[in-house]
Amino acid sequence: METRSESQDSASQQAISQIDFDKAGGVVPAIAQDYQSGRLLMVAYMNREAFEETLRTGHACYFSRSRNRLWRKGEESGNYQTVHEIRIDCDADTVLLAVEQHGDRAACHEGFESCFFRALRDGAWQTVDTRRVDPSKYGPGYGHQPKSAS
Amino acid sequence: METRSESQDSASQQAISQIDFDKAGGVVPAIAQDYQSGRLLMVAYMNREAFEETLRTGHACYFSRSRNRLWRKGEESGNYQTVHEIRIDCDADTVLLAVEQHGDRAACHEGFESCFFRALRDGAWQTVDTRRVDPSKYGPGYGHQPKSAS
Repeated sequence: METRSESQDSASQQAISQIDFDKAGGVVPAIAQDYQSGRLLMVAYMNREAFEETLRTGHACYFSRSRNRLWRKGEESGNYQTVHEIRIDCDADTVLLAVEQHGDRAACHEGFESCFFRALRDGAWQTVDTRRVDPSKYGPGYGHQPKSAS
Repeated sequence: METRSESQDSASQQAISQIDFDKAGGVVPAIAQDYQSGRLLMVAYMNREAFEETLRTGHACYFSRSRNRLWRKGEESGNYQTVHEIRIDCDADTVLLAVEQHGDRAACHEGFESCFFRALRDGAWQTVDTRRVDPSKYGPGYGHQPKSAS
């Protein structure tokens, strides 16, 4: 995806205004998919500001609902994402990013390529992927806390 | 995906209890991805009952928030989905279905293979896919109404 020039800003503003941020209280789900393999990497959220920053920089920027602030993916870990394409769904309330995952190529804060590393097998959620990196290398405060701790 | 037998039910109930339906008021986002191509087809929602029915039947059943009832995908159009695999994300608040799309192979109520048929090009959302079917063939009341009419 090309980053936006000044002259493209007004067109982009019109496209942004078509995104239905209101339906879910100011954010839309943002799905990141590997631009080459099609692997579903993660689902996060974007508010308008995060979407605008993503357009401007070409790097995925989400909105962290738990931290209530912009989340520049990879800011702590180096696992940033460059955005190759952005799509929107029929209802304009979900966006789909085709991304290139950098750093340790782990989109998940638990060190897996994808947050969807568990599949239902024989009635139980089983880890079926291999962890790519031990996320403790990013420091003790890395990632969001498990729900049981919040 | 094998459908569940009676003897597998208690194991499944445990797996279901691990899904965080509470975070979003009783539903989780459910992402349907083509089981072969990896194409992202649609994003809908499931409540516990929809998830259980999906497990039991092997056919994707969602929960329609606008209609406030179970939505057996394809019940009107014949565009049903058989589920080959179910994954869950690290936070257990989003599920990913690997599905086989049947009928006219149009997951989108607008007649496209995927709801994500528009991409951002030159600052505007442009339709970049080809419509597979005219959804008016399913009857005048087919699909949800556009937001402007609600």
